[in-house]
Amino acid sequence: MTVATTSLTRTERLSLFSLTAACIGVLANTFQGDGEPLIASLALSGVAFSSSYALIRWLGDTFMRAGFKGRDMSKLRHTEIPETMGAVCAVVYLLMLIIFIPFPFYKDIVAATSGGGNRDIVLEVQHVEHGRFLHRFPHNKLASFLSALLSLHSVVILGVGDDLFDIRWRHKILIPAFAAIPMLIVYFVDFGVTHVVVPTPLRPYLNGAILVDLGWLYYAYMAAIAIFCPNSINILAGINGLEVGQSLVIALLLVLNDSFYLLLPSTPYPHPATDSHLFSTFLLLPFIGVSFALLAHNWFPARVFVGDTYCYFAGMVFAVVGILGHFSKTLLLLLIPQIFNFIYSAPQLFHLVPCPRHRLPKFNPRTSLLENSTATFVKPLPRPVAEAMKLMHRMKLLRIKTDESGEVVESTNFTIINLWLVWFGPMREDRLAMGLLGLQTACGLLGLFVRHRLALWVFTADNLSRQWIS
Amino acid sequence: MTVATTSLTRTERLSLFSLTAACIGVLANTFQGDGEPLIASLALSGVAFSSSYALIRWLGDTFMRAGFKGRDMSKLRHTEIPETMGAVCAVVYLLMLIIFIPFPFYKDIVAATSGGGNRDIVLEVQHVEHGRFLHRFPHNKLASFLSALLSLHSVVILGVGDDLFDIRWRHKILIPAFAAIPMLIVYFVDFGVTHVVVPTPLRPYLNGAILVDLGWLYYAYMAAIAIFCPNSINILAGINGLEVGQSLVIALLLVLNDSFYLLLPSTPYPHPATDSHLFSTFLLLPFIGVSFALLAHNWFPARVFVGDTYCYFAGMVFAVVGILGHFSKTLLLLLIPQIFNFIYSAPQLFHLVPCPRHRLPKFNPRTSLLENSTATFVKPLPRPVAEAMKLMHRMKLLRIKTDESGEVVESTNFTIINLWLVWFGPMREDRLAMGLLGLQTACGLLGLFVRHRLALWVFTADNLSRQWIS
Repeated sequence: MTVATTSLTRTERLSLFSLTAACIGVLANTFQGDGEPLIASLALSGVAFSSSYALIRWLGDTFMRAGFKGRDMSKLRHTEIPETMGAVCAVVYLLMLIIFIPFPFYKDIVAATSGGGNRDIVLEVQHVEHGRFLHRFPHNKLASFLSALLSLHSVVILGVGDDLFDIRWRHKILIPAFAAIPMLIVYFVDFGVTHVVVPTPLRPYLNGAILVDLGWLYYAYMAAIAIFCPNSINILAGINGLEVGQSLVIALLLVLNDSFYLLLPSTPYPHPATDSHLFSTFLLLPFIGVSFALLAHNWFPARVFVGDTYCYFAGMVFAVVGILGHFSKTLLLLLIPQIFNFIYSAPQLFHLVPCPRHRLPKFNPRTSLLENSTATFVKPLPRPVAEAMKLMHRMKLLRIKTDESGEVVESTNFTIINLWLVWFGPMREDRLAMGLLGLQTACGLLGLFVRHRLALWVFTADNLSRQWIS
Repeated sequence: MTVATTSLTRTERLSLFSLTAACIGVLANTFQGDGEPLIASLALSGVAFSSSYALIRWLGDTFMRAGFKGRDMSKLRHTEIPETMGAVCAVVYLLMLIIFIPFPFYKDIVAATSGGGNRDIVLEVQHVEHGRFLHRFPHNKLASFLSALLSLHSVVILGVGDDLFDIRWRHKILIPAFAAIPMLIVYFVDFGVTHVVVPTPLRPYLNGAILVDLGWLYYAYMAAIAIFCPNSINILAGINGLEVGQSLVIALLLVLNDSFYLLLPSTPYPHPATDSHLFSTFLLLPFIGVSFALLAHNWFPARVFVGDTYCYFAGMVFAVVGILGHFSKTLLLLLIPQIFNFIYSAPQLFHLVPCPRHRLPKFNPRTSLLENSTATFVKPLPRPVAEAMKLMHRMKLLRIKTDESGEVVESTNFTIINLWLVWFGPMREDRLAMGLLGLQTACGLLGLFVRHRLALWVFTADNLSRQWIS
């Protein structure tokens, strides 16, 4: 059993130091030279990894003294370990993204001011597109980028508030909605596009329209995405490494999807979606950096907990990337396990079926394995609910116990984690996490395949190809 | 003695509700009509006042349960009251500013997108200046505004961290430096002007140059302002109502200064500094709203404490407004009491003179008045220090006690609060706060007078007049 320690080993110190030094070297070089933003982003992600790795270790004690601590109930010894360590990652991430700003955004006006804050004496205008493959962003993307940062900042403030104050769940599902406000408002002011492409099979019903203006419905859709992503990660949680692991898988798959647009030689250039996918890559690479640092501490046996802050933060990163990058449908394909888990959990979340306070798998101290946790029903369940559960039991989607009269008296809890244990039997915590992460990866790869190979059935053009809506 | 209560009285509820309803009415009207941003800002400040007033009351218990609580040592009974309530104000303030964005920033492009996040099908361009007196901002001001919000968000995150973790003071003075990074980086990318106007008397030494490019020194100057403002408010603190009171006085004086540019009929229009001062007003009005709500709870006898978060937040609002509005010199004129307090404190802060852990005035339970707190010196002080202190004593800038051999054995602590008590004798806490706030107001008004009447001695033009640097 690893005991919480707050100092780095000699090897860790050396490796982190060399990584940081190398990355800073690359950064300095990039900044003085042409400033290729993608290289700068990779280097900053390295710095993000090493600094959050070190800070997570160093700040453990401080967090525990401030009351951010918890016991791991799925272990033999219930040692207290630091909680809410995701906040450290989030702060490092936000700082890195802010330092990153000068790399992709060039100055488009250099002016002298007369002291009143005006660009009244323009000395020089540098508005030249450099014609590189991965070119820099035009200045007007800066507002989008800053609004993304603001939404992420907000979700961190509210997430820490949640970890501090233990907000009731019917209030806390709205945290991401508040945090999404900056992004949606800047979208409204800055871009304001609420037209979407109509899938081909639906066009006859809309007088053959290719584009349809959804108006405020489009904002409701974006808000729904922003509410769903963080909460869906927050409910698929509770075993070591699962929160960070699933976020890493999703982030890596999103970067894979971006790379189709940025790196594949078959993609025509300049592709209309290049900017969006560059934007997405820049937001995801440092996220991957800080998440690996956290995973190293949160993987079985966990030395720190990530806290709700991390789940909200990770989900918000995906929501921001999906919304501002305009590929929210692709994002949803990568969240299939989360969507399934949410739908599967719904009967307990909405109290159709009695819901115990904790639905995490049960630790069996004799075998050291995790077993199904169950809900027991004292009062008989309504007839249709009981019948539905029996059907699910036959379809291997649940395991129930019935008494002699055929009444359902116990069932496994309605989470994908328990379902995995129904399918494969009791297992050690890390094997369970591995299994679920494997499922996440497989579903995601399948989703991306569907996205790029089969989307032509419903849309006239996949946006990886050159034929554009005409 | 008021006991902490967490519900609003009937009168409070009614007044807050009517205020909010009226403000929301004004807002709705403004939004549908021409959208005059200044009216919207005033209405939002009303909403900011009433919502933070109610939230401060409602969240008192929650904060105390989470450990944010403290005892007021300057009262007869040391009841525990909620601490860090400034965080509530800060969150309300930030939310209001975000909701405010659509009012001053018009959409300059309405475009349909093809799904890749591109403005490839431009439907309509509305780029018409409406020719109003208080016109809307051009789109490129949005990045500045968002960077200001990001810096304020950062200072709130770090300030709450400080209140939670009790960071050492040599680390915590750097909190505002970190928080200023977003603003400085966006300034670099977006505006990048580092030229300043040279005062007339200095021009002969610079080959007659009117403008001089300070380069990175200008960034150092801005960082220094951002570090100084929050910390200077944080060290002029500790008696009921003083932190919020001084911030309110400074904010009101800054709005007064803005109004010279915006409302005076003698000001020529369009004035080159109008935009900067509008920007400043928009950031200050909601701040005044939330601060009044906090003052109502923090004024003697205090029912809540404001926390370091509030001091950092308030100072950062001033720094942001001064820097992005390009009137940091004017801002420093309004901070004269803080500057004096900092210089006066320096001998104790830098340990030239022994510094006790607390330098707050001492509460005398017999008289219920605040008296001078003192530092006692066991070891004799170095000769020059002792002589300097005796000189200050004669100049009424300190009160010392000497033993029979003439050694200084005790002195009042080096803060402006103690100095006030040296001058006017023991007094009740609210009279002390009143006195200091009166001083702040008087110094500020004098500062503004100097700024607008006497600045012509060193600069060729005050920027309120039309004659511009030629």
